[in-house]
Amino acid sequence: MTIAPEEDRLNAQIAFAVEIDKLKRIVRRNLLIDGSRRENDAEHSWYVGMLAMVLGEHAPPGTDLHRVVAMLLVHDLVEIDAGDTFVYDQVAVAAQAAAERTAADRIFALLPREQGARIRALWDEFEARETPEARFAKALDRFAPILANHHTEGGTWPLFKVKAGQVREKVRIIQEGSPSLGAYALELVELSVARGHLAE
Amino acid sequence: MTIAPEEDRLNAQIAFAVEIDKLKRIVRRNLLIDGSRRENDAEHSWYVGMLAMVLGEHAPPGTDLHRVVAMLLVHDLVEIDAGDTFVYDQVAVAAQAAAERTAADRIFALLPREQGARIRALWDEFEARETPEARFAKALDRFAPILANHHTEGGTWPLFKVKAGQVREKVRIIQEGSPSLGAYALELVELSVARGHLAE
Repeated sequence: MTIAPEEDRLNAQIAFAVEIDKLKRIVRRNLLIDGSRRENDAEHSWYVGMLAMVLGEHAPPGTDLHRVVAMLLVHDLVEIDAGDTFVYDQVAVAAQAAAERTAADRIFALLPREQGARIRALWDEFEARETPEARFAKALDRFAPILANHHTEGGTWPLFKVKAGQVREKVRIIQEGSPSLGAYALELVELSVARGHLAE
Repeated sequence: MTIAPEEDRLNAQIAFAVEIDKLKRIVRRNLLIDGSRRENDAEHSWYVGMLAMVLGEHAPPGTDLHRVVAMLLVHDLVEIDAGDTFVYDQVAVAAQAAAERTAADRIFALLPREQGARIRALWDEFEARETPEARFAKALDRFAPILANHHTEGGTWPLFKVKAGQVREKVRIIQEGSPSLGAYALELVELSVARGHLAE
């Protein structure tokens, strides 16, 4: 019995679709903006995709926002295998890169070859942060938890003893993707310090 | 003191961003594919956005997949106010339309006027289901829970006493957006019936 190539493609795509549902079970450190619980990677990916649509005008002129959205939808898929790493945990962040590459090798290979390569290229681009699209996408990825922490009396900052200097370093990544969002994020950080929700 | 117009715009966009975080708290009927818990609207919106990227070749030629993704990211925002309605609850579905329009009036108005109108137009287009983009987006929105139910021994079908005839009617909406995905969904439905996970 031979399987029609189209049927083969669809089966591979469905296998990928079933696999990526697991992203909903990967829990991040930061809380929802109402503070009720921790966020998962799937809803976070939706949220930053929406931010790209809503805050797109704060990207440099000429930025391809469709690619930014696509990049953000796939940017955390590798965490299905590699798990979420707290951005302020330096040791874990260093070990994470290799684990995420291994995860990418497995997960994107579930798709038909050229499609898997195309979608993986979005993830590679995001990680490399060399294009305006990737820099803006990464800026939004950093912006979202600052917004959430600002709205939850510091959220993960006091909980994990993060200091203002460390957060200001992350704000630099936002500034590199979007000067205006970087300036806004810095305002939020200074306000959080003034309110005692983030320690110097 | 006057506020610079750009600052005004950003403040409105941030207010919208803070508001839509609530979508993560709106719980749907269907389960995750691993059956562990019910899905929320935000992670569902991410999931169908990903399906548009992965299954895009099953849309009619010429379909603008970027608009499909954008539509799917915003399609459930109105449920922040109107709540989730079970697709097989006819009475609730009829009452829902007015509640959702009222919700759209409030939520999209948080954005700067022309931007709010632009994003609301995506939601209107999705609801009207008159363009190939909207028909494909709605097909994916119907496809996802069938995939989840098929993988969770019928999931919400036996739980809410849904019959095969009702599901086949929903499959028609998938067929109208994508004949090949419609055919695949029908296969899943018949398999579920054969396995005793969906009653005739």
